[in-house]
Amino acid sequence: MTQTADSANDRSPQAVLEDAFSRFAPDRIAISFSGAEDVVLIDMAAQLVDELQVFSLDTGRLHPETYTFIEQVREHYGVDIEVLMPDPEEVNEMVRKKGLFSFYRDGHQECCAIRKIQPLRKKLATLDAWITGQRRDQSVTRTEVPQWQDDQAFGTAERPLVKVNPLAGWSSAQVWQYIRNEQVPYNPLHDRGFLSIGCEPCTRAVGPHEHERAGRWWWEEATRKECGLHAENLAAETQSVRIIE
Amino acid sequence: MTQTADSANDRSPQAVLEDAFSRFAPDRIAISFSGAEDVVLIDMAAQLVDELQVFSLDTGRLHPETYTFIEQVREHYGVDIEVLMPDPEEVNEMVRKKGLFSFYRDGHQECCAIRKIQPLRKKLATLDAWITGQRRDQSVTRTEVPQWQDDQAFGTAERPLVKVNPLAGWSSAQVWQYIRNEQVPYNPLHDRGFLSIGCEPCTRAVGPHEHERAGRWWWEEATRKECGLHAENLAAETQSVRIIE
Amino acid sequence: MTQTADSANDRSPQAVLEDAFSRFAPDRIAISFSGAEDVVLIDMAAQLVDELQVFSLDTGRLHPETYTFIEQVREHYGVDIEVLMPDPEEVNEMVRKKGLFSFYRDGHQECCAIRKIQPLRKKLATLDAWITGQRRDQSVTRTEVPQWQDDQAFGTAERPLVKVNPLAGWSSAQVWQYIRNEQVPYNPLHDRGFLSIGCEPCTRAVGPHEHERAGRWWWEEATRKECGLHAENLAAETQSVRIIE
Amino acid sequence: MTQTADSANDRSPQAVLEDAFSRFAPDRIAISFSGAEDVVLIDMAAQLVDELQVFSLDTGRLHPETYTFIEQVREHYGVDIEVLMPDPEEVNEMVRKKGLFSFYRDGHQECCAIRKIQPLRKKLATLDAWITGQRRDQSVTRTEVPQWQDDQAFGTAERPLVKVNPLAGWSSAQVWQYIRNEQVPYNPLHDRGFLSIGCEPCTRAVGPHEHERAGRWWWEEATRKECGLHAENLAAETQSVRIIE
Repeated sequence: MTQTADSANDRSPQAVLEDAFSRFAPDRIAISFSGAEDVVLIDMAAQLVDELQVFSLDTGRLHPETYTFIEQVREHYGVDIEVLMPDPEEVNEMVRKKGLFSFYRDGHQECCAIRKIQPLRKKLATLDAWITGQRRDQSVTRTEVPQWQDDQAFGTAERPLVKVNPLAGWSSAQVWQYIRNEQVPYNPLHDRGFLSIGCEPCTRAVGPHEHERAGRWWWEEATRKECGLHAENLAAETQSVRIIE
Repeated sequence: MTQTADSANDRSPQAVLEDAFSRFAPDRIAISFSGAEDVVLIDMAAQLVDELQVFSLDTGRLHPETYTFIEQVREHYGVDIEVLMPDPEEVNEMVRKKGLFSFYRDGHQECCAIRKIQPLRKKLATLDAWITGQRRDQSVTRTEVPQWQDDQAFGTAERPLVKVNPLAGWSSAQVWQYIRNEQVPYNPLHDRGFLSIGCEPCTRAVGPHEHERAGRWWWEEATRKECGLHAENLAAETQSVRIIE
Repeated sequence: MTQTADSANDRSPQAVLEDAFSRFAPDRIAISFSGAEDVVLIDMAAQLVDELQVFSLDTGRLHPETYTFIEQVREHYGVDIEVLMPDPEEVNEMVRKKGLFSFYRDGHQECCAIRKIQPLRKKLATLDAWITGQRRDQSVTRTEVPQWQDDQAFGTAERPLVKVNPLAGWSSAQVWQYIRNEQVPYNPLHDRGFLSIGCEPCTRAVGPHEHERAGRWWWEEATRKECGLHAENLAAETQSVRIIE
Repeated sequence: MTQTADSANDRSPQAVLEDAFSRFAPDRIAISFSGAEDVVLIDMAAQLVDELQVFSLDTGRLHPETYTFIEQVREHYGVDIEVLMPDPEEVNEMVRKKGLFSFYRDGHQECCAIRKIQPLRKKLATLDAWITGQRRDQSVTRTEVPQWQDDQAFGTAERPLVKVNPLAGWSSAQVWQYIRNEQVPYNPLHDRGFLSIGCEPCTRAVGPHEHERAGRWWWEEATRKECGLHAENLAAETQSVRIIE
């Protein structure tokens, strides 16, 4: 079922979404919304189906602006949004040992595993398919992202999971053209130099002509800039993420 | 054991702390640190005992500056700080139904109950005494706060809990004189017009000659501005908070 | 004619203003408005006279918020406001030699002399009286400010000048009570920790319980914190300012 | 002597600068530095000549960050920078009549004429050539900018003036590659979403994939977005600017 990444064969994001919603029951498919430009997916989906399941990983360290934006999307589209917070004990144990900014020293993997991956894994266990805003132009780790794939990081042989990436073939410029043409609400941080938006301490504005991923985990190498949601994109990483968890 | 609130009879904060640490085992007494000017308690306690238990209620909605400040305190005093986050399911249920800013419409009690009171109650169940930064000059609800009291909101007849408020009789000006004289680190928001600091959406800077509580839950009446940590201060409230939980 | 500074004998600010406007022709008396809380003077004066002369020293280095506020006052009271900028050649000569921040090294006197005092002196030469927002509680250099005085710094025996300080006896708290009661517009910087507001590089927010002048020329001693507008307040200074000019 | 705009025939910026400095006496040629990315010109020129004349139009309404940046450039390159402020009487007259933000209603031409063009005209009258950071990719009004031209807006038949645009053929991306490779200091506003930087009230950050001129005089049409420094770029405009002055 997994597609190859080939723009020539890409379908429109809307066609991919329509296909996805026709294949899975409404309570078995959900959009993963990060509080950034992937709001485009919600805008498209809201025109296709009445019942929409949306979740957002609330690490407890998002920008105040991102919470305001998530609320704005919730009200604008009249859609419930689940916010998935991490397990308090796990966070407490990490913080007591290493403090609130251990990622700057030890890399972001441990913190992402606790604050993002575990709540996500729990949620995905209730689904047959999830929809993400991944794009091939986002980073060197995403150049092979197909529109439709078998999620081997979070699915298993017994409990397969489909990962749908309707925007895989779109460029950042196309996303922004859509946002402006359709007057889609967007995170106000985007007007202050932010391109890609994640957790507050791990995101920063980028300068003119810097790549969007230069604003994420900037103290680490470009080839490792995945939070684990899309661990499949890091061939060797997939293993280690599984071991961690 | 509960004192009356009477500045004439107040002991020095250090004397109160010393007394407290002598009465309770190190693992049965803790300082509640909010990320604001109550850092003064940590500064005093660090000079009295080697083993210090400190916790902070991490609602998931604190200012980025507050997380940075908590880390700074952790490193400055070489003390572990527990961060107590709310139950993810409870937050999710509230947010799915009411969104991320329901407190502006429905009052802050429900959100505080989930994000602050429940994690606090869980923690206090492991203690015999807790130390807070409450002061009589902070608000009309705190004018009767004694330095030492039997905590009837979180303790029970079978499992009594002592609440120690060493700074009860200090004025805001005294706190700041201590901070400046002793070069105690402080939250940088205090230099941007913030006096009392709580959650980001529920805190704002105050103007010249405004009372510090004017920056907290400003859409509500002064007589109800307690988050529930200090519910005893609201005579009638105590009941309702107990019922909620 | 010069009064002594004695709160017991102070008249109300309105009475002082009324007296001032009755003694001088409208084109011979003006309010000096700094873009800060002295807007109170404009509010009072606008209720007493139809024709109001207001000027502001535009050093070219004010906060963007201050320009916005001056405009707001202009529109709110329907009053023309003169902005007095410095002589371009003088600024250029100073900057070419010493750069744009020489005040941090050499003290603020030279820059204030060029950007504030000279334009002020030029303006005052066209007046018989000027009205300022000076208050005795503002600094150790202003404890003797009377409500009405013979301005010996800018007037001369041949061309005497009256300096009127209607708010001399008011406290900061009284000014702010007036602003809030009368819903007088105020500079938004006051809600971000700023008390006294001057030029952007020479003004900063102050922390809790810091004196307002701690936010002005903070790298210099409290006894010298006058920009020269009110040079009389510095007994010895008066001479040197005159020599500079 | 005026070139056509033809990237194929463009020389390197350094070659153009070298040519310019060899043709004109040091006191008869100057770089116009706006406090933005045209610092690249100073970086290149500092490697070619010892004596460098640089001026900046200080309208009195620049961002605080821009003044800090100009100072940084001054210190980094050890070069004197002239700041040319407007005539105080002219500004005062405009402001008294129309306030401090008339450009939002009446267009920016009048304010630019007083705050930028007149000080520039005065300065250019002392020069034989000036060097600017204009680029063809900056706006629809600049697509024909050559590297070297006879300045007919500020020169006359009797007193000809050469305008040198070494970066005419460079793209914004090339400018930023140079800045990063050579570690040239840059205005910190560029890291907060600002591309083109002018006066504070007339500049704003742009969102992802917006053109840099979308951040300048955004309430006006793209075809008129010239401040008058480069009035030649607006064929019909040239006349009107001359009439205004």
